[in-house]
Amino acid sequence: MQIVNHLKMYPQSRINRRKYINNYLTTIAMTEYYNKLVELVKDAGIIGSVRELLEWDELVTMPPGTVERRGLQKAALAAHHHKLATSDKIGELISKAESERLNDEQKAMVREIKFDYEREKKVPEQLVKELQITTTQANEAWEKAREKNDFASFAPHLKKIIELEKQKAKAINPEKKPYEVLVEDYESGISLDEMRKIFGEIKKQLVPLIEKISKAKQHEDKMLHEKVPLVKQKTFNEMLAKYIGYDFTKGRLDESTHPFTGFDSRITTRYTDSGVHMAMLSTIHEAGHGKYEQGLAEEHFGTPLGQARSMSVHESQSRLWENHVGKSMAFWKGMFAKLQKEYKMQNVSLEQFYQAINKVTPNLIRVDSDEVTYTMHIILRFELEEALIDGKIQVEDLPKEWNKRIKEYLHIDVPDDAHGVLQDIHWSAALIGYFPTYALGSLMAAQIFETAKKSISGLEQKIEAGDFKELNKFLAEKIHKPGRRHTTKELIKLATGEEPNTQAYINYLQNKFGQLYGLE
Amino acid sequence: MQIVNHLKMYPQSRINRRKYINNYLTTIAMTEYYNKLVELVKDAGIIGSVRELLEWDELVTMPPGTVERRGLQKAALAAHHHKLATSDKIGELISKAESERLNDEQKAMVREIKFDYEREKKVPEQLVKELQITTTQANEAWEKAREKNDFASFAPHLKKIIELEKQKAKAINPEKKPYEVLVEDYESGISLDEMRKIFGEIKKQLVPLIEKISKAKQHEDKMLHEKVPLVKQKTFNEMLAKYIGYDFTKGRLDESTHPFTGFDSRITTRYTDSGVHMAMLSTIHEAGHGKYEQGLAEEHFGTPLGQARSMSVHESQSRLWENHVGKSMAFWKGMFAKLQKEYKMQNVSLEQFYQAINKVTPNLIRVDSDEVTYTMHIILRFELEEALIDGKIQVEDLPKEWNKRIKEYLHIDVPDDAHGVLQDIHWSAALIGYFPTYALGSLMAAQIFETAKKSISGLEQKIEAGDFKELNKFLAEKIHKPGRRHTTKELIKLATGEEPNTQAYINYLQNKFGQLYGLE
Repeated sequence: MQIVNHLKMYPQSRINRRKYINNYLTTIAMTEYYNKLVELVKDAGIIGSVRELLEWDELVTMPPGTVERRGLQKAALAAHHHKLATSDKIGELISKAESERLNDEQKAMVREIKFDYEREKKVPEQLVKELQITTTQANEAWEKAREKNDFASFAPHLKKIIELEKQKAKAINPEKKPYEVLVEDYESGISLDEMRKIFGEIKKQLVPLIEKISKAKQHEDKMLHEKVPLVKQKTFNEMLAKYIGYDFTKGRLDESTHPFTGFDSRITTRYTDSGVHMAMLSTIHEAGHGKYEQGLAEEHFGTPLGQARSMSVHESQSRLWENHVGKSMAFWKGMFAKLQKEYKMQNVSLEQFYQAINKVTPNLIRVDSDEVTYTMHIILRFELEEALIDGKIQVEDLPKEWNKRIKEYLHIDVPDDAHGVLQDIHWSAALIGYFPTYALGSLMAAQIFETAKKSISGLEQKIEAGDFKELNKFLAEKIHKPGRRHTTKELIKLATGEEPNTQAYINYLQNKFGQLYGLE
Repeated sequence: MQIVNHLKMYPQSRINRRKYINNYLTTIAMTEYYNKLVELVKDAGIIGSVRELLEWDELVTMPPGTVERRGLQKAALAAHHHKLATSDKIGELISKAESERLNDEQKAMVREIKFDYEREKKVPEQLVKELQITTTQANEAWEKAREKNDFASFAPHLKKIIELEKQKAKAINPEKKPYEVLVEDYESGISLDEMRKIFGEIKKQLVPLIEKISKAKQHEDKMLHEKVPLVKQKTFNEMLAKYIGYDFTKGRLDESTHPFTGFDSRITTRYTDSGVHMAMLSTIHEAGHGKYEQGLAEEHFGTPLGQARSMSVHESQSRLWENHVGKSMAFWKGMFAKLQKEYKMQNVSLEQFYQAINKVTPNLIRVDSDEVTYTMHIILRFELEEALIDGKIQVEDLPKEWNKRIKEYLHIDVPDDAHGVLQDIHWSAALIGYFPTYALGSLMAAQIFETAKKSISGLEQKIEAGDFKELNKFLAEKIHKPGRRHTTKELIKLATGEEPNTQAYINYLQNKFGQLYGLE
């Protein structure tokens, strides 16, 4: 396939042709093991993509009565995928390819293949199975515990998960701090020390900002809670995703209990009672993720260079669209008239709507939180995760520690664990180390958007006019297309001139919410 | 998993328990290879089911811009499936299991596993690949040829396919007639001689019946061509499928270009301009297929005993529901009032509607044909396929041979090959030997329905009342549940008391259409 494509491209004159072929054959000869390696990895990666279809289908289209079969299908495909992805042959070929004469792109490919291979290979199969069984049970226990507001019944499951996750971390790299190893599943390009520094700086600014906002004059948002017929909302949301450049020839927008971006860049949203803006911002958020997937290099499909850099960078794309575009005055200047008509908001002004969708109210629930307090939810979880894995706090102490921090950071009291430590699914699914990427994404989004504003003349006017071509092109070139070619730091530095840091993010929040709440 | 289920079932008294366990352990010991065999086959079968999801998704939900990836995904999964299904280990275990002490069900399982294994194993991989490439090209060529009405441009592709199919047949069984081997892919339980005899008998009755009908007073069907809003049709069709017992907790009804039943019993229909009855009868037809899939034994999922007996038997289920129920007076006695209201047919009488949906008009196009002339389309294709594979006619002669038969059987002239030999996709997809199962299905449907009428008292009244419980139970027990436990002949004999034969089918057609057209 690849050879065919190459031959299609080669020049028409006979001499040039021969030259081209000679060059090409030399390349082949120099990267024989590399080519074989990529072929095997791609084969496993394609099977991996089919696993994503099983998951997408389960969450979007699967009739509920086929869930048991789905378990069998997922397990069978996961086993085959694991076998392919951890074959000794791949291990051999990595070593051999490393001593071939590779160009920079190929070197990056081998580096990332090796990272994945070692992580997948080093965890004993027995441990993988035990984690599967434990999380299935823990998830059931968590659902019941949340329902009954009974942390004690979930605690033993969480203990077991922490124990197994520590074993996993040790199997992968016994030299490193276990939490650092776990975090690397989702972001391997920013160290734990760096994260701690970043979150410390953010916390120092956010806690007083939240306090100041709470003392300022509050905005009204009841217009967001008027009923709008579902069919109107669906049409509007589909229009929104298309409007900002999500490509429906490669994707689709469906509904699901929790919005997500899955298989082949397909996105979902959710229509809730918590305000009509929730579905819209969800759609824009997921469309940001979806465009990242759509912008990956098709020729690398199934390999690391055809995958998103990290969960943090992925989140930078969704947050950029949700916060910097979808919650901006410029965006709604161009779209509010349409919304007014479709959502019957004729009595609401643009200014009022803008204030409402940006209203800051400390909320017990992370997923219902605004842009400012949301990040404090993440920092809290990051601190607790690290302390748990380090053994500095015990599972039993979690509710107390949780509630203390919510009080300290958001000035609210947690009435029960269902609205506290039991609210998130992540820990029951052994997704430990995932949370920090949400906040890192917001940080990078601010850096990337600040750079975009400098590079694209009149970006605000363009956003107002619904012209997202240049912004999409900028993101596609700087962030999407490279896949995992660069490390996270390199990627952000190449895109913005600076490594990930808090400056742009803090400026953005201070400015936007300073204005919104008339702070000095 | 299976052991756990067994233990759940065992008796509570201590002595009985010990006895039970001993018996059970003896069973295990006696069927060690058998158990291992079934485990491997099931694993491959589950991967096979995921291939069906890829196909369902492609035809129903896939955005068009991801078709190239889909090619890669299907090829990768097909390769892994083939590897699993043809492993030498399975071959060894078949021999070993055959000499174990198996019960009848287990013997049937091994017989069917062996059948599949040999068919999959004996065809050289090179030939499989060549067929894949050839059919991909042939399909493209066929689409263009049909569009341009240019059989000559398709002929070389068809020649190649016939050549490869003959090689395939020879690889599988060089002793048998190649067409017989090909037919066995879709119906292995009725020999070619038997089919020839069956189709001969049907033809002898149908040709004069069609002629008599053509001379009788014709019925009006223009009320079927009034426009009904799509959303109303969708609601009505979904209601219809539910009404006859299709289980939406395990399935779903979507739209696709060609109606089909795929992955996990999911069905589709199509809303066309050829009359509002087309979508309804399609839905009922596919729901018949879907209920067969839903009635298969869940514990055998992934193995032959969890699969439909054959394409003929599958078609018997769709035809039974479409023709014997969905086109019956009893059914519409119970449903017509609702249709009248939803489809605005207040000026149409039940009798007129019944006559319209059963109108017999020789049609050049198979899929637009009525119940009577449809079967002649099949017989024609069966005759031509056999002659082609036997070399008794050449590809070049096909249009002439086709048109001659259409004239002879249906008394109409074929204006061009697009409305003749080029109308079906099957040959371009190397589905040679598939057509006869459509007619065999109609035949068995008549036998099964005749028996159901005898076994279920007041069946017509129950159909009128929308009470399909007993009919569904009858079909589930007699036809669905056994999967491939029995051969086709055994299955039909167990269900109806007779092996497949033309009696019931011919009686049914003569009676129904004799009455409809006032024939003597």
